[in-house]
Amino acid sequence: MTSSYFIGVDLGGTNIRTARFARQSHIPEAKAKHPTQGAGGPEVVYQRLEAAIREVAPNDLADVAGVGIAIPGPTDPYQGIVMKAPNLPGWINLPLKQIMEQRLGRPVFLGNDANLAALGEWKFGAGRGHDDVLYLTISTGIGGGVISGGRMLLGARGLAAEVGHTLLDPNGPLCGCGQYGHFEALASGTAITRTARSRLKAGQGAGSKVIDLVAGDLDKVTSAVVGQAAQAGDEFARKLIAEAGEYIGQALASLLHSYNPSIVIFGGGVSMLGDLLLEPARAKLRQYAMSDAYWENCPLVVAALGDDSGLVGAGTLVMEETDL
Amino acid sequence: MTSSYFIGVDLGGTNIRTARFARQSHIPEAKAKHPTQGAGGPEVVYQRLEAAIREVAPNDLADVAGVGIAIPGPTDPYQGIVMKAPNLPGWINLPLKQIMEQRLGRPVFLGNDANLAALGEWKFGAGRGHDDVLYLTISTGIGGGVISGGRMLLGARGLAAEVGHTLLDPNGPLCGCGQYGHFEALASGTAITRTARSRLKAGQGAGSKVIDLVAGDLDKVTSAVVGQAAQAGDEFARKLIAEAGEYIGQALASLLHSYNPSIVIFGGGVSMLGDLLLEPARAKLRQYAMSDAYWENCPLVVAALGDDSGLVGAGTLVMEETDL
Repeated sequence: MTSSYFIGVDLGGTNIRTARFARQSHIPEAKAKHPTQGAGGPEVVYQRLEAAIREVAPNDLADVAGVGIAIPGPTDPYQGIVMKAPNLPGWINLPLKQIMEQRLGRPVFLGNDANLAALGEWKFGAGRGHDDVLYLTISTGIGGGVISGGRMLLGARGLAAEVGHTLLDPNGPLCGCGQYGHFEALASGTAITRTARSRLKAGQGAGSKVIDLVAGDLDKVTSAVVGQAAQAGDEFARKLIAEAGEYIGQALASLLHSYNPSIVIFGGGVSMLGDLLLEPARAKLRQYAMSDAYWENCPLVVAALGDDSGLVGAGTLVMEETDL
Repeated sequence: MTSSYFIGVDLGGTNIRTARFARQSHIPEAKAKHPTQGAGGPEVVYQRLEAAIREVAPNDLADVAGVGIAIPGPTDPYQGIVMKAPNLPGWINLPLKQIMEQRLGRPVFLGNDANLAALGEWKFGAGRGHDDVLYLTISTGIGGGVISGGRMLLGARGLAAEVGHTLLDPNGPLCGCGQYGHFEALASGTAITRTARSRLKAGQGAGSKVIDLVAGDLDKVTSAVVGQAAQAGDEFARKLIAEAGEYIGQALASLLHSYNPSIVIFGGGVSMLGDLLLEPARAKLRQYAMSDAYWENCPLVVAALGDDSGLVGAGTLVMEETDL
């Protein structure tokens, strides 16, 4: 009996997504999607995870080399412990690797979702052929993952590449982590939403499509709405996206000095705005970088695997770990 | 004939220092120190380098496994090219590895001086036993080196860990690299000197020991003088050092999020002030970090090898490269 398949799991606050992969492939042979039901607490989620995994695993997991799980929060991949999953109530210091291995009888590997998205994009997406990759997900929050010298950069406790919490302005707005002025607090979807509502309520943006799109109910403005208006050419919305892009460029200058990647890959919903976001980022990066050598051969691109970066990365993690 | 010795070279703006090491030792068997004479241009420095290397190499380099050179500036270690050495006139894109191999007939390896200091401290100094090390040198400028997962973090072109150019304040003072508000522009010896002179000339610090130490000639105030006064208990000087320490803590928060080291090692002259500098850094780090997990098991310590970190690291580089 050979162990021929790899299971990837993307554990999200809303849905659990699972996929079965063959070796060296990122095209799922089977996929499943179940509501996470995180409000029920960890035990409920364990059951949901097991069900979603078994749904894509033939023959009672007999042919499965292992299961990789992308975790939405800081995770110790060495010990297999979820340190914190902010969107899952009760998820603090849970030994999920051990728990799921007992349930499944197969090896389980954990990773932070952005770290695994970086791994997936590196092996099968926009980062193929590069040894040094910086992956950023710009969505509700900002996450990061780094491949350095052909290996995942994890750090002492697996907490490396939390680049969304790069401090850009000590006097800046409150971040999701409780601190102030972090990159995430200035350039995430949440930040765009907050700034858009605040400006509109202060009377700016009169005549903007953003107002039309929410039929005047300013509390319904979101970064997605702003993005939609920006894509339609709305100047108020474009300025908001451009400002987020400028903060991205400012953060990138420091991050490129830190990691010196040969490509930066952008995932997450806000990144789908493409050059509306990335062109201002490029301009600021060029302004703030200490040398052209950091950016002249380092393209900023959108993720090739889209929403599946983390799912593919979770499967890739198993391929990597069981190849050793 | 066995290749039993390793030569380390610390190429500085003022002096070239060389040492001969036995395998797995950081205690030099021989040392030499020659003036760099950088004003004479690259050819003169090549001659000085060769002379200083031969002085510590017995038997016409026959028993030498290789020569490692720590370069004071951005360096491509893969190609063996010095991209820029700001304190050495004419040192732009020099293929130093090739040039010195032709002169010496032995393998030559290059590295950025702060990267190699990190390597030296990791193998033989304060970082022994750690897999994830952040090394910072706080002197005229601020340099950095990172060991991640038991390997030097180099990046695509060997330009990683230039953490002195982490952007802390876009409205901040001019940095040595030509940009503004970088960590180096706010917390280096140069920054302390600049701030001290500026405050004293504005009439602050009346009665400070700093003024006595320069006999009232404020243009003679340096960070070393400020440090001396701070160690003697002078409040004006202590505040200047503490402010630099606070910027160090602010930068460390982002750097620990990026690299998640298990130890931070401080080299360079300013770091010799120890807790006068590092206690304010610790306080700010705790304030700005997104989670205690980043700092609670990550001590901030002073380098164990002192001025020899880079010299030892250059020798260590040869041990590492010729072990492969």
